[in-house]
Amino acid sequence: MRRVIIDCDPGHDDAISIILAASSDRIHIEGITTVAGNVEVEKTTLNALRVCELLGLDVPVARGAEQPLVKTREFAPDIHGDSGLEGPQLPEVPKKTAIEQHAVDFIIEKVLKSDGEITLVPTGPLTNIALAIQKAPTIVEKIKEIVLMGGGTFGNWTPTAEFNIYVDAEAAEIVFNCGVPVTMFGLDVTHQAITTPAILDRINSIETGVSEFVRDLLVYFTKTYKEVFGFEGAPIHDACTIAYLIDESIFEFEKVRVDIETKGEYTYGTTCVDRLHVTGREPNVKFAYSLDFEKFWVLLLSALK
Amino acid sequence: MRRVIIDCDPGHDDAISIILAASSDRIHIEGITTVAGNVEVEKTTLNALRVCELLGLDVPVARGAEQPLVKTREFAPDIHGDSGLEGPQLPEVPKKTAIEQHAVDFIIEKVLKSDGEITLVPTGPLTNIALAIQKAPTIVEKIKEIVLMGGGTFGNWTPTAEFNIYVDAEAAEIVFNCGVPVTMFGLDVTHQAITTPAILDRINSIETGVSEFVRDLLVYFTKTYKEVFGFEGAPIHDACTIAYLIDESIFEFEKVRVDIETKGEYTYGTTCVDRLHVTGREPNVKFAYSLDFEKFWVLLLSALK
Amino acid sequence: MRRVIIDCDPGHDDAISIILAASSDRIHIEGITTVAGNVEVEKTTLNALRVCELLGLDVPVARGAEQPLVKTREFAPDIHGDSGLEGPQLPEVPKKTAIEQHAVDFIIEKVLKSDGEITLVPTGPLTNIALAIQKAPTIVEKIKEIVLMGGGTFGNWTPTAEFNIYVDAEAAEIVFNCGVPVTMFGLDVTHQAITTPAILDRINSIETGVSEFVRDLLVYFTKTYKEVFGFEGAPIHDACTIAYLIDESIFEFEKVRVDIETKGEYTYGTTCVDRLHVTGREPNVKFAYSLDFEKFWVLLLSALK
Amino acid sequence: MRRVIIDCDPGHDDAISIILAASSDRIHIEGITTVAGNVEVEKTTLNALRVCELLGLDVPVARGAEQPLVKTREFAPDIHGDSGLEGPQLPEVPKKTAIEQHAVDFIIEKVLKSDGEITLVPTGPLTNIALAIQKAPTIVEKIKEIVLMGGGTFGNWTPTAEFNIYVDAEAAEIVFNCGVPVTMFGLDVTHQAITTPAILDRINSIETGVSEFVRDLLVYFTKTYKEVFGFEGAPIHDACTIAYLIDESIFEFEKVRVDIETKGEYTYGTTCVDRLHVTGREPNVKFAYSLDFEKFWVLLLSALK
Repeated sequence: MRRVIIDCDPGHDDAISIILAASSDRIHIEGITTVAGNVEVEKTTLNALRVCELLGLDVPVARGAEQPLVKTREFAPDIHGDSGLEGPQLPEVPKKTAIEQHAVDFIIEKVLKSDGEITLVPTGPLTNIALAIQKAPTIVEKIKEIVLMGGGTFGNWTPTAEFNIYVDAEAAEIVFNCGVPVTMFGLDVTHQAITTPAILDRINSIETGVSEFVRDLLVYFTKTYKEVFGFEGAPIHDACTIAYLIDESIFEFEKVRVDIETKGEYTYGTTCVDRLHVTGREPNVKFAYSLDFEKFWVLLLSALK
Repeated sequence: MRRVIIDCDPGHDDAISIILAASSDRIHIEGITTVAGNVEVEKTTLNALRVCELLGLDVPVARGAEQPLVKTREFAPDIHGDSGLEGPQLPEVPKKTAIEQHAVDFIIEKVLKSDGEITLVPTGPLTNIALAIQKAPTIVEKIKEIVLMGGGTFGNWTPTAEFNIYVDAEAAEIVFNCGVPVTMFGLDVTHQAITTPAILDRINSIETGVSEFVRDLLVYFTKTYKEVFGFEGAPIHDACTIAYLIDESIFEFEKVRVDIETKGEYTYGTTCVDRLHVTGREPNVKFAYSLDFEKFWVLLLSALK
Repeated sequence: MRRVIIDCDPGHDDAISIILAASSDRIHIEGITTVAGNVEVEKTTLNALRVCELLGLDVPVARGAEQPLVKTREFAPDIHGDSGLEGPQLPEVPKKTAIEQHAVDFIIEKVLKSDGEITLVPTGPLTNIALAIQKAPTIVEKIKEIVLMGGGTFGNWTPTAEFNIYVDAEAAEIVFNCGVPVTMFGLDVTHQAITTPAILDRINSIETGVSEFVRDLLVYFTKTYKEVFGFEGAPIHDACTIAYLIDESIFEFEKVRVDIETKGEYTYGTTCVDRLHVTGREPNVKFAYSLDFEKFWVLLLSALK
Repeated sequence: MRRVIIDCDPGHDDAISIILAASSDRIHIEGITTVAGNVEVEKTTLNALRVCELLGLDVPVARGAEQPLVKTREFAPDIHGDSGLEGPQLPEVPKKTAIEQHAVDFIIEKVLKSDGEITLVPTGPLTNIALAIQKAPTIVEKIKEIVLMGGGTFGNWTPTAEFNIYVDAEAAEIVFNCGVPVTMFGLDVTHQAITTPAILDRINSIETGVSEFVRDLLVYFTKTYKEVFGFEGAPIHDACTIAYLIDESIFEFEKVRVDIETKGEYTYGTTCVDRLHVTGREPNVKFAYSLDFEKFWVLLLSALK
């Protein structure tokens, strides 16, 4: 049983990630913290609450950072729509509300009270995690693992940078170098976790409330990925993190050095993944590079039943 | 009457700044927050408490950030000694203790509860202020003014960067661009606020407990400035901020654009002060460039009596 | 018939590139210019002369830049050996000598005297080409095409930068943005142009003087690629440029924007290849991304007969 | 007797620098090379020829680089007018013409043929000197001294960068680190070499052809400095270099480390002058920081007679 805090910016694939976590008896969600990313933090918080309500999931939701550590804010409405969760019908105003405590303080408190059992699962920009480390540096000794979606050996927001890292590269630099074991699901692997027409058919055949919600999410998400990137299917990036926590054998990994570029003219937010081991520096990341497509989707589809 | 939070890293000149504030009926100290800077935050907090005890000053002291936002930590023991306040005899362990609340939360709470009356006076690295703005961006509308010691048109830690800004340039970038009115006391003016043998004589002639403490501070500080920089006197940098809040007429100002370099190879932490107005950009800083030496010292000496 | 100047730093794959060009009746080599890269320019010049002598190739060889435009020099002896052309037996001192004229002046003169018919084929760092453009900017209107080996969407010298571009990124920035049509063979495609045991067998069976020379080159090169990068075969990077000029149909291309990073902390020399068209900027490069393996080797092997 | 090549972009103060050099029997001008800077190189070359014609100065003038090494071109028409030498009446088309040889080749040839006796005096961007060092690195052992106008501890083109260095910081980086003794006249000292009404009166009273020309230059230059920078007089920057070669005692110097920033976001082209010796690095520059105003003008005025 893994005790996790999901730190997210739902977001279509964030929502699926929460659904997958909620469905598994191998995951215990200690709380959900939200961050500005795909859309503003007001909206990502609202979306997290909506997803909880839909799932009947009773966990604390704590609102976090409105803006990156240093950079100005940047959003991705072309991908996730204006609300951040366009596609399915959702209750406008969920009954559930966020807790008073700030996400950063929620993370700090949970981690300090645990005996090194909390795993952080950031699937948005890493602002909250970085701020928590800044405010209470001793938490790094008590975090079991940071399992994140972000980066890759290529980019989707600039030619070399992935969105989550690009939005707050300074935060990423702090997190990747904080000393906690980091497991990274970047575009190399998440672009393998892709919807196909056959997958959409299999989801259609399930017919639960959750499966309909997910189908509507994926139809919208597939459409925007086609329009913006010309992709034939949409990558369910964020769900890789939870899939790994449920069944590590879905993925293949190698230990590599990853440095975060925060200075470049064209390369801000690039994760410099040393797959050829040319830097001669100590690995700091467990890097997922391959996914078993069938195993991944079997797991995901079982969550919808 | 100005209501201030002094955010500091004492530090010899920070200590004098607190003494000056405590002596004035035009300043009300709402609290003292501490930050890693001249030395580690454990030590700057201890030093703040010692100074309060010496003065019989009953204000909350809240401990803040242990490390800069993004950069690794850097200290200045050559200037301030191992304890951060070498020179005078001080109680090893003061009776007074820091409050539980983190400096960042103390700042946020005080500012939000005030009606735009709180002035922040950072005399160390700007980490706490930046973290407070990150965590609660709405505070910027309620801060009356930020009166800081830092930067200049030349450097003292690198050829172009001053220590406070260099230690956390990302924090400085946030603070200088947050929209609150910023009044900046950089090296251009603080290097005019210098101890001379005549000044030391005048302090010697006062003979109060506080004056002896300050004399011991200045003797030590003058010695390290001579050794490290070859200066004939030590600049009482931080006290300029409080002197300004007591008597603005001591200084001359101009409104200028100041940008913070966070990317350069040799210029990290440089405050790019546009005194010739060549950038054509809107001023964001009230920049002190000149000080009335006699007026400054008359004010400071009166505080020791 | 393409009239080319081969600007190179032989180098095993540079040598094969020259052999391929010399063997083809579709290529006319106007001259060979040398540059510091894999090894010092004295050695790359000597190696170019040796290869010419071996082939009986009577073309001018002009020595060029000893060092990058701005950066300090960096070499790749682990890959190409101390001489830059380790492996085969070669005449220590070739009879042929370099011309007096500097490579930069040779390029300028040849281009200005042609009617826009000269194609430049740089297979080393781009220093000579950049210096020629600097010294005589009008040449850009008269260069037919620049067909270069360099860069890629990933790196081999740093995690994100390829050797030729990394060695002189400022030169690359000039060349990629000079306005001449640039065709780029980066690691994405050159890592497909790889020796395999089957290919080495086919070369072994040819038994000409040239084929033996090439076999010895490839045996050495395959060994160092195995040792340094763990590759099972060696990529004949540079030969892709000439193969393209002989038979364009070997490759597949797309037009993309490529920007050169010259400022980053970890990403100096990265070619930011915008394959997802996320920058919205005009393409400036014809980017080769795929190669027909069999067609490539049939062409190369035919050159050895 | 100092044998010099004046490498310049006339430019009002460049012109005065040439006049001063031509008037002195302690200087032998081997040639004048031109570079893009204050205005395009076509214009700076024309202006150099005009000044030579006015003075009856029979030295070779060689045209140099049209653009900086890496950066895009930037000019200063607000200061020097459209022609680069607005103010005085000048022959539209001088009879004298530039030599065929490129400035870079002229510098290389002159230096290599001398026995270490040539001093280079760059008073514009350092592009030509850098290109010469690139093309023929061995010249650095034969250059006696590089006496340049550029940089300072503050800027005039950006808040921290002076025009000559800013226009081509990569070239400056090469020149400052090439190993030749560099003597630097930056804004710290050139802003002391300023026209005042009293000085203009003294020039007015001379009444030679040259003095009238110089007066017209200075009247125009003083006007633009007033308009653009709000200065009460114009600094005769470039003439400091020649004044030093005639009479070193006019200036005071210290040996310092100077690094050139080529990467910053706001600080490109900054000369990081380590006057407090905080870097601990070896000095590479003889830095002029003070000038004897009366001595300087006595020398300059005597040149007009």
